[in-house]
Formats: sequence, structure tokens, C-alpha cells
Amino acid sequence: MEFPKRVQINEVVLRDGLQLEKKIINIAEKKGLFDQLIKANVKTIEFGSFVHPRLVPQMANSGDFYASISEKQHDLTLIALIPNLKGAQNACTHGVKQVNFVFSASDTHNLQNVHKRTEQSLEELNTIQAFCKKNNMQLNVSIATTFGCPFEGEVPKERIHDVLKQVIAMDIRPITLADTTGMANPKQVYDLLVSLQRDFPTQKLNLHFHNTRGMGLSNILAGIEAGVTSFDTSLGGLGGCPFAPGATGNVCTEDVVHMLHNMGIETGLSLDELINASNILMHIVEHETPSYIRKAGPSNRKYPVPVI
Amino acid sequence: MEFPKRVQINEVVLRDGLQLEKKIINIAEKKGLFDQLIKANVKTIEFGSFVHPRLVPQMANSGDFYASISEKQHDLTLIALIPNLKGAQNACTHGVKQVNFVFSASDTHNLQNVHKRTEQSLEELNTIQAFCKKNNMQLNVSIATTFGCPFEGEVPKERIHDVLKQVIAMDIRPITLADTTGMANPKQVYDLLVSLQRDFPTQKLNLHFHNTRGMGLSNILAGIEAGVTSFDTSLGGLGGCPFAPGATGNVCTEDVVHMLHNMGIETGLSLDELINASNILMHIVEHETPSYIRKAGPSNRKYPVPVI
Repeated sequence: MEFPKRVQINEVVLRDGLQLEKKIINIAEKKGLFDQLIKANVKTIEFGSFVHPRLVPQMANSGDFYASISEKQHDLTLIALIPNLKGAQNACTHGVKQVNFVFSASDTHNLQNVHKRTEQSLEELNTIQAFCKKNNMQLNVSIATTFGCPFEGEVPKERIHDVLKQVIAMDIRPITLADTTGMANPKQVYDLLVSLQRDFPTQKLNLHFHNTRGMGLSNILAGIEAGVTSFDTSLGGLGGCPFAPGATGNVCTEDVVHMLHNMGIETGLSLDELINASNILMHIVEHETPSYIRKAGPSNRKYPVPVI
Repeated sequence: MEFPKRVQINEVVLRDGLQLEKKIINIAEKKGLFDQLIKANVKTIEFGSFVHPRLVPQMANSGDFYASISEKQHDLTLIALIPNLKGAQNACTHGVKQVNFVFSASDTHNLQNVHKRTEQSLEELNTIQAFCKKNNMQLNVSIATTFGCPFEGEVPKERIHDVLKQVIAMDIRPITLADTTGMANPKQVYDLLVSLQRDFPTQKLNLHFHNTRGMGLSNILAGIEAGVTSFDTSLGGLGGCPFAPGATGNVCTEDVVHMLHNMGIETGLSLDELINASNILMHIVEHETPSYIRKAGPSNRKYPVPVI
């Protein structure tokens, strides 16, 4: 087992993390959480999405929320998810400088999510790229259901390879491979990433795991062993796709950071401040979260010795 | 990443899994759970412990429970935990054929757990071994707090090495290394196991992880990569040491088996029957358990496609 010195953490709690929450989180609450994430030294934040407010009501205030945080742009990477060209246009209207276009490797999930087949989303990506270039916006891409589709099951490796090839041909980076409903296992992650990186050695790949079946940390470990050094995580382990049945939380930021730091891998983040942020998050969403470290504390926590 | 063809799972729910439960589980309930574990083809079961009934009331019926299942002994390995010679004697009285002597690598935890320093437990191990030989009982050993002590923090590698050396000198196998309060991380597990196996190449080692900080599956993965092929797990992810503050559940059997099967590693167990057992367990203990797979179902679960 060989490990890198440093791993990049992209915080998605303000987007993926909150989008399944029933209680609408207002801008002041999001801002409070955001400020605490900055205290924890988080540098890359997916802060919201430009999707139809009827479909994902939680994200309806993303434009206004961005206005409240955009002055931080100079030393932060602030990213908005977009599902289509309309989303890119809305993000542009609000002055957003970096967008993440998400579509699915499986037709069935993509149809549920954005009412298009994968091929149609790839065509739209061309238009979005032109739009972003013209408006000086950075464009990232996330390929959902890379490690399995809740409707179709396994997505053939060849299909992932082919979709990735088309995106790479457009000179887009970074590209995120997402395990939308937590179907990936460590061997699959390792094998797929080794194979993709052999074929596309200069392409930077970011991984996005959900912890639906408890394998989130193991999949990150497998990704690291395959040479990946950039991961999406969500504070408190909140999250899930509204259009994927059985979807549950992302792999939890503080749990990931705790594991990495204990393994001697730097993230640049403050675990203590992340735990504070996780406590704020629990207060905001008004329920317990799947975080382990918020509850148990770090491994180096020592208990007083009871008198026998 | 290279993986073995097969991994051995030792089910500890009836001992470690239940010992923190407040509701006393009666023999009929334990028997119902046991029968379902047999249906899942579980072959190695730690069924209870012979400890002071005032200290661990849940285990007070271990002898009577053994009487109700002992006829299964011919094709099963049924193990009772013992903390001292008295436990070995009680187990013997009840006809138990295999015992697992547990003591801690850290003095402070061992003092809390069995009122002895590590060295004193090692001395007692000699007496226990003589007793077991005389009574034709198989003796295993578990070394608790191998990966960290909740009172002392890190336990030096040299100490683990030294304790293990003393146990191995007594020709005892298998030996279990236990992460009593879920402090281990994958790098630590890999490094320690590689080092120990280099020094003691013929000694079979079994690993016992708790999922206190979410790293249970990752630690199993690291153990496998270090060449270990035998693990303790607890159905539903229940468990925890009554004398270790902050202790929570063991790594969850069905989550481990699901991950291993998905990685192409055999366990000989039926995941479907384990999920059934996990449902029975939840019914018996009358609360939700930390199992992921019981809730999410396996990765190959396909959902019907909603009409858009």
C-alpha cells in the first residue's frame, strides 16, 4: 500500500448534502455553515445548483446565496452544479465563474434526472462548453452512475470508457466519476481507475462516492491506491440524488479527513473546525447525521481512567 | 491490489454484539438468531462468555444457551470468551470445547477489564493453557487494544510485538488482534500486520475491528491486502466492550460479506440469509442497528423505473 502526501477534498454539503433535506435551509443558515467551512480551511466548495426550483426546492436560493459569498471567490473555488444549458445561463446571470455539468453514464438514470439520453447530454455539453468559453466560465463535468445505475444495474466498463473519451476529447478538466447511489466496491473502483488512467494518463479524475452500503471510505482508499488524489465529500455525510431511488448520503467529510490524517495524508483542512461545522450542520437540518467522527471524536481522544 | 479467493468470517453477534444491549435477550431469542445464522451457513460462532454475571448480565445465560445449541458442535466451531481461569473452568463445566481468552495489550484497559496488568494476564494464560490441555479444550487468544487504548492512546508497536511473541511461544493459534474501540486506520493495520507477519510468518492471525469511526471495512480491506484472511464480524454491526468508554459496534457482518462478495471474494455465507438474520436481530433487540445492507439492500438491487 502506497499513499500520496496530500489529497484534495471538495466539499459538496451545500449542494448534494442539502438537496434531499425537507426543511428549506435559508441563506443566513447556509452562510453560517459556509463561514465555518472556511474556518476549517476548505478551499473548494460546490455551493449550490441551478436546476428547476420545483424539482429541487432546496437549491432555489443558490443565486442569492452566491451573491452573499462571491466576494470570497479570490481564494476559493466556488462551483455550481448545472444539469443543462439553461442552468449554465442562470449561473452566468448570477456571476458564477465555475460550473459542474452533471449527466449520467446510464440512459435510464439520465432520462429520470434530466429527461435526456446520455448521448443527448453529451451533445448539449458541446453547446454548454461554447457558452462557458464565451462567458469566461470554468466548466467541469461529473459523470453520474459510473459505478452502477439503480435502474439498469451494472454500467459496462466500455460505456464509461467511451463516455469519458468523448468528454476528454473536448479538453475538459477536472472530470468527476460519481457513484450516485453507493453501488461501487473497492475492487471495482481500483480496476476501473487503473484502466481509465492507463488509457487517459494526463486526465485528472475526481471521485464522488455515496456511503449507501458503507463502502465510501473503502472506495476512497481504493481510489487512492489507484492514484487518484481528489475526492468529493459532504459534511456530516448528508446527501443523495432526488431522482435516484434508495439514494443516501455522500461519504462524510470529517470521517474521510480523519482517516486520511491518521494515515499521514495531508488535506490542508482542520478536523476540529470540521467537527464544529458538522455540529452547526446538525443544528441547521434539525436531525442526527451519519457522521461517525462527530459522535465518536477522533481516534486520539483519550478518556479519563475511572477509579475501580 | 491483490485479493484472496476466500475469507473466513467469525460471527460474534451472540457475544460482543449483544453484551452492551440493555434488554436481556433470553435463550429462545438467542436460539432463534443462532438458527438463522446456521441457515446463512455461518460456521464459526462466538456464542457467549463466561464472565461475572453482575459485570455483563447479558452473558449470564451463556452456559444454558450452549446446552441448547451444543448438539450442533460437530460441524460448527462454537467459542466462548473467557477473561480468566475461572471463566475457563465455568466453560469446561458447561461442556464448552473452545474458549477465547481475551486480555489487553495496554495495562490501563486490562486493569479496567480484568483487574490485572497485561503481564499478569500473560502469566494467567499459562495456567489457562495447562487447564485447557488437561480438559481437552481448544484455546484461542484475543489481544484487545492492539490498535490503540481509549485511556493510553497509541500502544507502541514494540509492545504488540512483544506480547504476541510471548503468546506465540506458547504455541497458541489462532490469535486475534482486536481494535477494541475502533481506533485503527488502514495504514496502521497494513503496516502492523506486514511487520508482524514478517516476524511470525507461520502464525495465523485473525482481526477484530469495531466501526466506531467508520473505518471498519477499510481496515478489513487493509488487513486483506496485508495477507490476513480471517475476521471477526457482528451481525447488524452491534457490539462494544462494556469497560471501554466510547465503544460502539463491531464491523457489520452483512456489510463485510456484501463488500467481499462484490469484490469476488468468497465467504461461504448466504448474504440473503444474513439479511434475514439481521432483521430478526433488530426485532430481538428492539431498535435500529448500524447495518447498511439491511437498510439499502445489496448493490445489485434494481429499482423499477418510474414513469416520467
